[in-house]
Amino acid sequence: MIDLSKISTLPPTHIDKDEIKKETKKLCEIISEKQHVLYAQKKFSLLVVLQGMDASGKDGTTRRVFGDCSPTGLNVIAFKKPSEEELGHDFLWRVHQHVPSKGMIHIFNRSHYEDVLIQRVNNWIDEERVFKRIASINAFEELLAYDNNTVVLKFYLHISKEKQKEELLERLQTPEKHWKHNPNDWKEAEKWDAYMKAYEDVFNHSSIPWNIIPVDKGWYGDFLVAQRVAAALNDLPLSLPSLNQNI
Amino acid sequence: MIDLSKISTLPPTHIDKDEIKKETKKLCEIISEKQHVLYAQKKFSLLVVLQGMDASGKDGTTRRVFGDCSPTGLNVIAFKKPSEEELGHDFLWRVHQHVPSKGMIHIFNRSHYEDVLIQRVNNWIDEERVFKRIASINAFEELLAYDNNTVVLKFYLHISKEKQKEELLERLQTPEKHWKHNPNDWKEAEKWDAYMKAYEDVFNHSSIPWNIIPVDKGWYGDFLVAQRVAAALNDLPLSLPSLNQNI
Repeated sequence: MIDLSKISTLPPTHIDKDEIKKETKKLCEIISEKQHVLYAQKKFSLLVVLQGMDASGKDGTTRRVFGDCSPTGLNVIAFKKPSEEELGHDFLWRVHQHVPSKGMIHIFNRSHYEDVLIQRVNNWIDEERVFKRIASINAFEELLAYDNNTVVLKFYLHISKEKQKEELLERLQTPEKHWKHNPNDWKEAEKWDAYMKAYEDVFNHSSIPWNIIPVDKGWYGDFLVAQRVAAALNDLPLSLPSLNQNI
Repeated sequence: MIDLSKISTLPPTHIDKDEIKKETKKLCEIISEKQHVLYAQKKFSLLVVLQGMDASGKDGTTRRVFGDCSPTGLNVIAFKKPSEEELGHDFLWRVHQHVPSKGMIHIFNRSHYEDVLIQRVNNWIDEERVFKRIASINAFEELLAYDNNTVVLKFYLHISKEKQKEELLERLQTPEKHWKHNPNDWKEAEKWDAYMKAYEDVFNHSSIPWNIIPVDKGWYGDFLVAQRVAAALNDLPLSLPSLNQNI
């Protein structure tokens, strides 16, 4: 059982920042090499789900970990407030349209999980629907895995309440970061405990396990995400198609 | 347990064709009236899945039962051989895109069930995948039901082998029906017993139950489908939105 209050948001004390950054750089190169083969082979695909409280670094992680990848084989989808057409359908409808085809890496910056997080915390849906949706999500992710060779990697960017406040303040105080400021973030931050509880329920009822990533130090979070992505790609039997396969 | 060989493809003997046709006409009018309210209210939706062997009358049933409906609120989707892009995704990907939004009636002429029928009969997928897919289909249809108020009505148009042969021959012999002729239909017809077995497995593992419709006499099949659709619409708490709901 995952209890977020018991998981540190900081790196272990003995860790050397410069060493880790060097490691991360190597991992990002491996990811980019593997992505090339993944794309050429068109047999497997990778879905990376990034969730986390506001200012936990979803954009930055994406940029730093996948920055070396070829944009042709990479697609980042940021899920915002649903449109009227999207609201006319079940919650997985818009999400399903954006899953990776064979050969692709897709990154979900927020995802179908918002439908059991923000919606639950704000009481837009009842508890029965929350757990029905969690069951639907499990069935959906299993479908992607067995029927389309999609590796589903899910990361929770675990930031402390204090660090979030610091980051949100910085957005207000730094002119170059003003564009990121959203007054609503402060409102959602007030519901911190309800969010932690909703996240824990997600983690503890998910059939494909989550990775909890401490991100108070962004460089350490990057390292862990890169390590996990590189390992997942390494585990796949990737190979460039030979000429006779294409004739 | 459904055993197709024990279900007649003919109407009961005492049935009066003219009476039935009059009844069907009334039912179609009810369907059309209800559809108007369904569309205006935008709270519920209806998904009609039509499956059946070639020449079992999927097109004709659609035309005759839903012919009175307003085309604005009605959408017929005929699923053909998947495209390359569709094959790059899980089997439900293309199907999910075409489910009805609130207020709509969508008719699937063939459907996601082909992925556990034609694919199974031709051994394109193994048995393990067949049953995983059936589980995915159940989860998918349940999602539509609870998360988007979608009524899922599934009809198997039950034709006899002899009647099918007659219909396929007529396509060859009648110039106006030549466009319907497809030499592949004769090939698939040879796999009749394997199809019946695959269909039975679908019916007996489906969480939303199927309606088995005898269609050797088309007028009787139309009546049963119309009756079931009208009853389903009748069961919904449909009402025209009042003015103050829109202010």
